[in-house]
Amino acid sequence: MDLIRERALLDVALEEARVGLKEGGIPIGAALYGADGALLGRGRNRRVQDGDPSMHAETAAFRAAGRQRTYSGTTMVTTLAPCWYCSGLVRQFGISRVVIGEARSFDGGQAWLAEHGVQIVVLDDAECVALMRDFIAARPELWLEDIGEPEP
Amino acid sequence: MDLIRERALLDVALEEARVGLKEGGIPIGAALYGADGALLGRGRNRRVQDGDPSMHAETAAFRAAGRQRTYSGTTMVTTLAPCWYCSGLVRQFGISRVVIGEARSFDGGQAWLAEHGVQIVVLDDAECVALMRDFIAARPELWLEDIGEPEP
Repeated sequence: MDLIRERALLDVALEEARVGLKEGGIPIGAALYGADGALLGRGRNRRVQDGDPSMHAETAAFRAAGRQRTYSGTTMVTTLAPCWYCSGLVRQFGISRVVIGEARSFDGGQAWLAEHGVQIVVLDDAECVALMRDFIAARPELWLEDIGEPEP
Repeated sequence: MDLIRERALLDVALEEARVGLKEGGIPIGAALYGADGALLGRGRNRRVQDGDPSMHAETAAFRAAGRQRTYSGTTMVTTLAPCWYCSGLVRQFGISRVVIGEARSFDGGQAWLAEHGVQIVVLDDAECVALMRDFIAARPELWLEDIGEPEP
């Protein structure tokens, strides 16, 4: 595993997350790369910006990539471990690899994906951790809404 | 289980599927209902119409419903058994029930959802079966693209 290369892959997703935060949104970003390393699509959570609960960072990047005949060999990079919704996306479309900025703030379907043959890389990136930790502390109700959890 | 009521719930999803077919799209429709039975959102597969692979029927209906604080008690009605992507949506957001028009043409995550406490109702509706059977026979490449499967 070439961790230097994967950390570089995280750059675009992190940039998306930072923009999302500035927009008042939930700071999660993602990018989808082709088997050849080309950027196919990038996006960020758009719940607040567009009032659209279907646009998590991963689904936004997937959408931005447009129609693709196959996802074999592709890599989904995301600043935060994918939820069940986004994990289902990865499994259904046969995305080969998921590179995760951090999995401390949230644990979705990454183990399930690994069981089903998806390569998982967790970078445990300090900026990704700080982005979510600070956001969850500041806007807990928005974070819980985004993952469909009741307020405590 | 009140099958007459569930068959009536299927009407909106079926109408969406029929419109999708007329538009040249993949004929799958869905509708999300609140705990009180009110229609929250409806939609259809938009891969062809919008060039958007992220809009399956269920995600389109979920999007159309806008931001919701909870999905407890809601019902997702879909003309075709949900794929892993749409099953992940149901699980993550805690949608309580899925009413499925037919599960002959496709088998996604319905058993997995049932294991995780989602109520599943399969209507085995003849029109839903015919819509997908005829579409898959006519446009197999489009159907396979929509579920991320390689061509045979």
